Amino acid sequence: MISQQRLAEQFKALENFSSSESGITRLAFSDEDWQARNFIIDLMTKAGLTTRTDAFGNVIGRLEGLDPKLPAIMSGSHADSVPNGGNYDGIVGILCAIEAITSLKESGWKNDHAVEIVLFMAEESSRFGTATLGSKAMRGKLTREALRQFKDKNSISLYQALSMRGLSPDSIDTATYKAPLKAFFEVHIEQGKVLEHQKKQIGIVTGIAAPTRLKIQLHGQADHSGATPMELRHDCLCGAAEIILAVERFAAAEKSTPAVATVGILDAKPGVMNVIPGDVELGIDIRSICAKTKKRVTEGISASIAMICEARGLEFETTLLADETPASIQPQMLDFLEEICREQQVDFLRLPSGAGHDAMHWTDYTHTGMIFIPCRAGISHNPAEYAKIADIAAAASILAQAIQKSSSASFSWTQNI
Amino acid sequence: MISQQRLAEQFKALENFSSSESGITRLAFSDEDWQARNFIIDLMTKAGLTTRTDAFGNVIGRLEGLDPKLPAIMSGSHADSVPNGGNYDGIVGILCAIEAITSLKESGWKNDHAVEIVLFMAEESSRFGTATLGSKAMRGKLTREALRQFKDKNSISLYQALSMRGLSPDSIDTATYKAPLKAFFEVHIEQGKVLEHQKKQIGIVTGIAAPTRLKIQLHGQADHSGATPMELRHDCLCGAAEIILAVERFAAAEKSTPAVATVGILDAKPGVMNVIPGDVELGIDIRSICAKTKKRVTEGISASIAMICEARGLEFETTLLADETPASIQPQMLDFLEEICREQQVDFLRLPSGAGHDAMHWTDYTHTGMIFIPCRAGISHNPAEYAKIADIAAAASILAQAIQKSSSASFSWTQNI
Repeated sequence: MISQQRLAEQFKALENFSSSESGITRLAFSDEDWQARNFIIDLMTKAGLTTRTDAFGNVIGRLEGLDPKLPAIMSGSHADSVPNGGNYDGIVGILCAIEAITSLKESGWKNDHAVEIVLFMAEESSRFGTATLGSKAMRGKLTREALRQFKDKNSISLYQALSMRGLSPDSIDTATYKAPLKAFFEVHIEQGKVLEHQKKQIGIVTGIAAPTRLKIQLHGQADHSGATPMELRHDCLCGAAEIILAVERFAAAEKSTPAVATVGILDAKPGVMNVIPGDVELGIDIRSICAKTKKRVTEGISASIAMICEARGLEFETTLLADETPASIQPQMLDFLEEICREQQVDFLRLPSGAGHDAMHWTDYTHTGMIFIPCRAGISHNPAEYAKIADIAAAASILAQAIQKSSSASFSWTQNI
Repeated sequence: MISQQRLAEQFKALENFSSSESGITRLAFSDEDWQARNFIIDLMTKAGLTTRTDAFGNVIGRLEGLDPKLPAIMSGSHADSVPNGGNYDGIVGILCAIEAITSLKESGWKNDHAVEIVLFMAEESSRFGTATLGSKAMRGKLTREALRQFKDKNSISLYQALSMRGLSPDSIDTATYKAPLKAFFEVHIEQGKVLEHQKKQIGIVTGIAAPTRLKIQLHGQADHSGATPMELRHDCLCGAAEIILAVERFAAAEKSTPAVATVGILDAKPGVMNVIPGDVELGIDIRSICAKTKKRVTEGISASIAMICEARGLEFETTLLADETPASIQPQMLDFLEEICREQQVDFLRLPSGAGHDAMHWTDYTHTGMIFIPCRAGISHNPAEYAKIADIAAAASILAQAIQKSSSASFSWTQNI
């Protein structure tokens, strides 16, 4: 049986590893992060796992299987946080995995496949500007050069941060995970409000969106707002307004596979009452779990920007800041998790993940499934982040059954290692 | 004859009274402003005017008329500047008036009405946050209490600034101008690009717009931009975009009497790529020379804001920052100035002034006329501000004739002193 009490005590304990009064501040490789890592290693050990660590500091706790030759079943998430974040983002995935194994063992389960629980380091981009670094290391996507390039605001490189923790940045290649896997699972809070809105306890993630990010710089004429008739203006903010609405329109138009697109940054200059804005910078974030959909939205927005600027006599520059590939989840995995939800009589919903997660690095490596828990009002990356312990326990229970059933599942998708 | 050379030398000399390397920085009552004031007193004296100064420091240079009982004809402008402003805004009105009198005297003109040239202090709002302070003092609109309230960024009050210059803030009441006037004229650069665009040398100002200014604060939901579907959003920036376009549309719709409306300030928070803007602040500036027109535009915009916020589930607060009354110019004065332009074969255009000027305080006191000079690309309040000396001379020549002809003009509008 999943123990809500055990889970609650572990969440409570992890609250202590924070450098801020308000919410959780646990930046990657900080003292607080290292303390949380030690706490989790301790939990893994108590759960009967044998822990090892790789060159990047990722912690892998292994429960050996009856047949050590069979591919392992992996589950994991992260323990670092954004500044003044919440106490659920990341750690819920670690604690659910440990609780799942603990409860399975208590039930007398004998695992033929090994199980590995992974604490991925440095998932948040807050310290080094790039997300899911630990997963990238395990998937062979981090070079020694990159470790030197990523720097925090105090100019400490990721290379230095690893060295300071006694890790082995020079041997980063050895962190690459090479053993075959039977499946990978991650539990995470939704960080959105769809589940709450639809009153569902569990989300089955249909795909993990990846962002395309554009910086748009508009240049017009910063004329006197009193002395310039409407017909002689080249007002960048009016152009930006049309672009903002086009961004919204193109994303909303995608119905079969949803897309989201957001102007999160708008900087209008000179930004005073009596001058028409002559320069505006926009930051646009476009996401979908379908690469084609995302491309169509991006192209629609780009074409609109050109037309809007042409019509208003504005100049513009577009900078592509990111263009990542979404991770898809196999339909067979969705059916697999759905069946477990039905068995456990849990209200569930299939939904895309708009945010990136460690899981997205495993979808092209093994059969990957992701389970969402509702979070209150969709609030995350904020001290007010909150998930119900009952929902967390439901996710741990589904994860436990998924791990158990994976052993005998014959996933048809061929691994592409 | 108007002397372009004399004018050019005076502009050149005034360039020296600036505290900045780039452009002119001559804040009200600063050392540079005081030096420029002394230079202008000197010019007035050389032109044969008798100067006096009031409790606010405004300088009035008087050329007595043959009949001292006749009401004087007044012309003036200011000599202070914004930080890093240009060398034409304000001083062109003083230098043109002095040059007009000098040239009239050289031509052997004997004035029956007295002529007064006024250097208005503190026209720009840059130092004390409020514009046309000298004119307000002469029109009895400045109280001793107000002098203590207006403060610069170093917390020096206007009261203190006056005291430091040996002026008499306690006697501010005595600055009120009480003598009857025959007419008031002000020459100024357009600070817009209508004249340049229409290839006209002179603008006859049809009215002086005054702003209505609104601060709008929108409140929505700062959700995750990846995890929040389009239909669950309360995106303040999308609401703001619709408001920006409504502001533009309502102003552009006014055809008979033009209006302008501008969103000059937009601050979107939190202002990061992966969060939907949950709070936006807008600064809206609405102007027209017709109070009714301005009211109609303001009401249209306000109604739109309410509808847009209702439709998007946003909350909003409106703060009325300013609601000033436009100053109208009498049709008879427009005809009077137009006839002079025709006689002097100058290409002219009737146009509204979108910016405020000292002249606006005299329209309800006497027959007031305002003459605009084109400025290159409409640029003002900027080191690149530039007006052609030929255009300045043309304005001085029209002003000279206006002063001369005012003596015998029988303006029908009854003064309302």
